Amino acid sequence: MRTYKQRMPDDFHLHLRSGAMLKAVLPYTVEQFGRATVMPNLHPDPILMGLQAEMYGNEIMSYGFNSFKPLMTIQITEKTTAQMIRQAQEAGVIAGKIYPKGMTTNSENGVVDYKSLHKVFLQMEASQMVLLLHGEHPHSTSSLYRERDFMDTLDYIAGKYPTLKIVLEHVTTAYAISTVKMFKNVAATITLHHLLLTLDDVIGGKLKPHNFCKPIAKFESDREAIVEAAFSGSHKFFFGSDSAPHQRSTKECEEGCAGIFTAPVIMPMLVEFFEKHGKLRLLENFTARYGAEFYGLPRNEGILELVNVPNHLPKEISIPELNDSVVVFQGGQTISWSIKGVSHA
Amino acid sequence: MRTYKQRMPDDFHLHLRSGAMLKAVLPYTVEQFGRATVMPNLHPDPILMGLQAEMYGNEIMSYGFNSFKPLMTIQITEKTTAQMIRQAQEAGVIAGKIYPKGMTTNSENGVVDYKSLHKVFLQMEASQMVLLLHGEHPHSTSSLYRERDFMDTLDYIAGKYPTLKIVLEHVTTAYAISTVKMFKNVAATITLHHLLLTLDDVIGGKLKPHNFCKPIAKFESDREAIVEAAFSGSHKFFFGSDSAPHQRSTKECEEGCAGIFTAPVIMPMLVEFFEKHGKLRLLENFTARYGAEFYGLPRNEGILELVNVPNHLPKEISIPELNDSVVVFQGGQTISWSIKGVSHA
Repeated sequence: MRTYKQRMPDDFHLHLRSGAMLKAVLPYTVEQFGRATVMPNLHPDPILMGLQAEMYGNEIMSYGFNSFKPLMTIQITEKTTAQMIRQAQEAGVIAGKIYPKGMTTNSENGVVDYKSLHKVFLQMEASQMVLLLHGEHPHSTSSLYRERDFMDTLDYIAGKYPTLKIVLEHVTTAYAISTVKMFKNVAATITLHHLLLTLDDVIGGKLKPHNFCKPIAKFESDREAIVEAAFSGSHKFFFGSDSAPHQRSTKECEEGCAGIFTAPVIMPMLVEFFEKHGKLRLLENFTARYGAEFYGLPRNEGILELVNVPNHLPKEISIPELNDSVVVFQGGQTISWSIKGVSHA
Repeated sequence: MRTYKQRMPDDFHLHLRSGAMLKAVLPYTVEQFGRATVMPNLHPDPILMGLQAEMYGNEIMSYGFNSFKPLMTIQITEKTTAQMIRQAQEAGVIAGKIYPKGMTTNSENGVVDYKSLHKVFLQMEASQMVLLLHGEHPHSTSSLYRERDFMDTLDYIAGKYPTLKIVLEHVTTAYAISTVKMFKNVAATITLHHLLLTLDDVIGGKLKPHNFCKPIAKFESDREAIVEAAFSGSHKFFFGSDSAPHQRSTKECEEGCAGIFTAPVIMPMLVEFFEKHGKLRLLENFTARYGAEFYGLPRNEGILELVNVPNHLPKEISIPELNDSVVVFQGGQTISWSIKGVSHA
């Protein structure tokens, strides 16, 4: 029986929600990751201020997973001020997230006018708070072009604030990958599902709501560029799952929510994917080094161990309090790697 | 109160299903159309022979809508023979439909090798039986390119059998429209939903399974080309709804079926759409003349009358026998035209 060991990884883009959903999904992240950047787009009240982030962090920690450290964020809106950035930093917030208006789950507080955030960006630069961008232009002629059309905005922010650390989240196109490479201060997160899916996994056969996310998976040539970036050994590309749990009833309906719930399967599937391509030696840097370096964090100390035994992925996670479930990405399949556990070196 | 009257239209592409579903959906077509080309892809047993088509036609007529004439079809597979074409013609079959393998609802009997159908095409040419093509290449690099990539096949068939009447069904791209124009013996049907939708109406915001069909709606530039073709006055473009009822439970699920159920709303929405664009004078030819001419049928005799009164479209059609419903295209909206009825001139 083969084993795979690596430094405890980080998930630099994670939706944990709150309440019963948080309680149900958190254990899957905790068993695989030392830290996670926790998205602020809670419904109905997004995390906009340091104090809220602190309370939300306390809710996450209340489940007693003391080996896990949530990296807290606030959502930056057009009403965010430089003072709010300073206060957030004092409250331990490590990054600020911008959603374009009207683009994804709870993005009503999205930004249209990025220039109006001049003082906020200056303060983030001074504080070395990371700027997380959902990179989609809301008025493209097709949703397939939204990421491409956002590159002008990325260009503007990255050029005007050259020491602001910017992460283009969940990159989905070859075009955006080449743009990210142009800026010293820009990195990008790559999800598990964008390594695996194309648009046709959503619409090419039957309609598959559990493969539907924003930005939507694009063409095979884009997927190949994402895989190449993940395998490139470039410090600019690191892992962020964008695991986004939604109740089954809000996915399988007339107007289904965007978001893919990968949390339970991430490290086993990443090991399988990297190994299949002969790139397993690159997985530790992708998941446990480059992101920490970009954020300016020490690396995790524990060791995650996986074993090469069949792993039947669960179809869904039940949420009894909500009388509903969350469907697991590629659930029902059997893959060849399982999590054994964490040890401390 | 304004009225709109025109010669009774035809729907040259319609899915009626059988049993309880047929019973539920048929009345909506009958009140608006004099005839409809009835698709043969029944599940589990598609209509492959003249005798089956005759029995299916009898089932449709058993509901007593004597003013309505179903135009019966068979599905052409790689096992179809020239003799089967002759027998089908004798049984009153007017067209043969080819699905590419693995492409849409019940297309297991789809065709891969079009050259193997040489004798079938010669017999269809001799019989003046219309060839209906679901024009998607099954091995494109993206589902968005399938129609484009099918144009080589269309080119081959149309060129080799120059007097075979070919209809490229539910055209969705500017590229295919320009290809159709190149061949004297090729026409195309245009659906209501492809006049109105783009890909973003499926995936651009929330995921909308009731806007999901094959071929999927494409880009805005494609939609504009379809509208232009419908408004062009060209005899090559005529109406076929591809109305395709699926139970709600098979649309809103992990793997949703392709197909949009437009039957209850077609003529009111077409009148509204053509009027909005100042093209109402072109609607009668599009729906009641060009298709009949291409098929070699006389035009219908009755007159359909619509009135300009608010029409609240039903959200769904209930199917008590199936303990389920079928969601209506754009149901819940209020539009400005309603069907008044049919008169005989």
